[in-house]
Order: sequence, then C-alpha cells, then structure tokens
Amino acid sequence: MDLAKYIRDVNDYPKKGIIFKDLTPLWQSNEAFRYAVDSLADIVKDESIDLIVGAESRGFLIGTAMAYKMNVGFIPVRKAGKLPWKTISAEYELEYGTDTLFMHEDAIKKGDRILIVDDLIATGGTSLAMIEMTEKLGGIVVGSAFIVELSFLNGCEKISKYPTYSLLKY
Amino acid sequence: MDLAKYIRDVNDYPKKGIIFKDLTPLWQSNEAFRYAVDSLADIVKDESIDLIVGAESRGFLIGTAMAYKMNVGFIPVRKAGKLPWKTISAEYELEYGTDTLFMHEDAIKKGDRILIVDDLIATGGTSLAMIEMTEKLGGIVVGSAFIVELSFLNGCEKISKYPTYSLLKY
Repeated sequence: MDLAKYIRDVNDYPKKGIIFKDLTPLWQSNEAFRYAVDSLADIVKDESIDLIVGAESRGFLIGTAMAYKMNVGFIPVRKAGKLPWKTISAEYELEYGTDTLFMHEDAIKKGDRILIVDDLIATGGTSLAMIEMTEKLGGIVVGSAFIVELSFLNGCEKISKYPTYSLLKY
Repeated sequence: MDLAKYIRDVNDYPKKGIIFKDLTPLWQSNEAFRYAVDSLADIVKDESIDLIVGAESRGFLIGTAMAYKMNVGFIPVRKAGKLPWKTISAEYELEYGTDTLFMHEDAIKKGDRILIVDDLIATGGTSLAMIEMTEKLGGIVVGSAFIVELSFLNGCEKISKYPTYSLLKY
C-alpha cells in the first residue's frame, strides 16, 4: 500500500513557508490506518517489548493502536499540568526556546523494555525527551518507531543511540 | 476483570475538592487496556459502524485502539489551531464560560455511521460537541461509548438522543 497517498501536504501551516504533513486522511481510512499499525508492529515483532511510550496528542493515535496490536501497555507522555499523579519531566528544544514533557513516575519499572512511538519525527526533540524519561525510570529503550520521518531535519540522528524505524521518509 | 482496580483516585486534581479518575494505570496494564477495548467493542458489535470520532487528548487513547479492533477509521476532534485543514466547530460549556472543538470538514461523508468514543464522560459537553459536528457533516450517530461514566454529573442525559454505553459507573 502506498501510504503517502493518505498524507496531505498543507502549505503554510502552522506558519508561512512550512509544508505540514497532515495524517488525518490516514487515520480516516481503516485500510491505511491498519496497514500503518501492522507494518510498524511487524518491524519490531522479534523484539521483546513491555510498554509503548507516546506523547500527546498525535503520538496517542498511533501509540495505543500499536499497543493493542502488540498486546502491551501504553504510557502517555503529556504537557505541563495534564498528568494528575507524581511526575518526572524532560525539557526539549523548540525552534525558539524550550518546552517540557512529563511522565508519571510509576509509569515504568526498572528493566521494562520500551518502544518509543510517534506519528512523525521532525527535529527529534520530543522523542529524545521520551527516551530521557524512560532511562531516568530505569526502562530499557528498544528503539523508536514512526510512520513518517522528515529526514531533512535529521531527527533520527538525535536519537541514534537506539534503532529508529519509519515507514515513509521525506 | 475488575477494571476499577486500574483506575486511581487523585484527590484535589485539577483543583481542590475534585476527585480525579486517573486511567493511566489502565493504559499501563496490557490486560486491563485490552479488556476495556474489547468490552466496549463487544457492546456495539452488532451495529454497522464506519468511523470512530474521539477528542484530544484522552479520547485518542481509547478511540484509535477501538478503531483498530473494529477495523474502522478514526476522526480526531481537536482544540483551536490544531487541525491544519478546513474545519467546522462546535462550542461546549465549561464550568465557567465555553470552549470550542474542531473537526476537519472532510472528516465525515453524508451517511457515514459514527460511534463517539471517550475515556470518560463527565458533564457530556465534549460528547455533545462531537455529536453536533457529526450531524453537521451528515453523519449518522450510532451511539457514544465510554470506559467511565460519572453518572452523578448526568452527562449521558445530555446526549440521550442516541444510545450511550459505559463499562464503569460512579
């Protein structure tokens, strides 16, 4: 299946000069959605994995479907003020300045084997923050999986300490 | 399975006097997560459903896993500025004032059969907004499904024009 047909280029979003990769047509199509989930799960099928970690909000779309398919649990990573229990955090870089992501401190037990998942990797800041928090809690990062990789932004280099997988590269 | 064991009561979140139902232990447990998805899907298994509609962010957690299980597509409903394409919107009531949710205008075709899904129904404002947008695009609402229903807030009454389903009532 040509997944690229289910990704819409939106010009000048979120700002002038950016071509945004809109994956909503992919989620909308049961066939494309299923193909993306099954293909990513197939890539990591020989790895022992306990939990998938994904960040709000679009990481939840692919993350929980993959967790269901792979019969593992899901750990939501969220922005400030969104998790109700005790949290740890990691900063990540934005174009100007930084932002912070949070994870519950009881989300991962020492030795849990973790797959990082997101719909798309751009500069890799979000994924790096997820890896840092996973390691802080003693989790073992198995790798990171994405539907789309914007390879011209070199995000996968930032997290190349572990294997990275993607279905589509731009 | 007693799903309630996987739901954590957090006192005074998001503010004093509120007991927040934290579902992160449920997502974390592959068994509880799977049981919740399968049980909700089982309740609606005799309905013809084309698409699941769910709102950011926690609605994405249960929504896409259910879409995967039921082999249907998923439509993300989002807050202002988060959807890149042309949108429709619906206001919903908060404790003080209102907020607005958005859906892509090509998300649903006339006659598509829609299941509204969320992790939890409180006052029902979010679900009602999802129903309004679904109807605006000509979709047929089959019903609304939730893991948790806070029945003392009467949210299901607000959307009782269509069937509502929940796994746990408080």
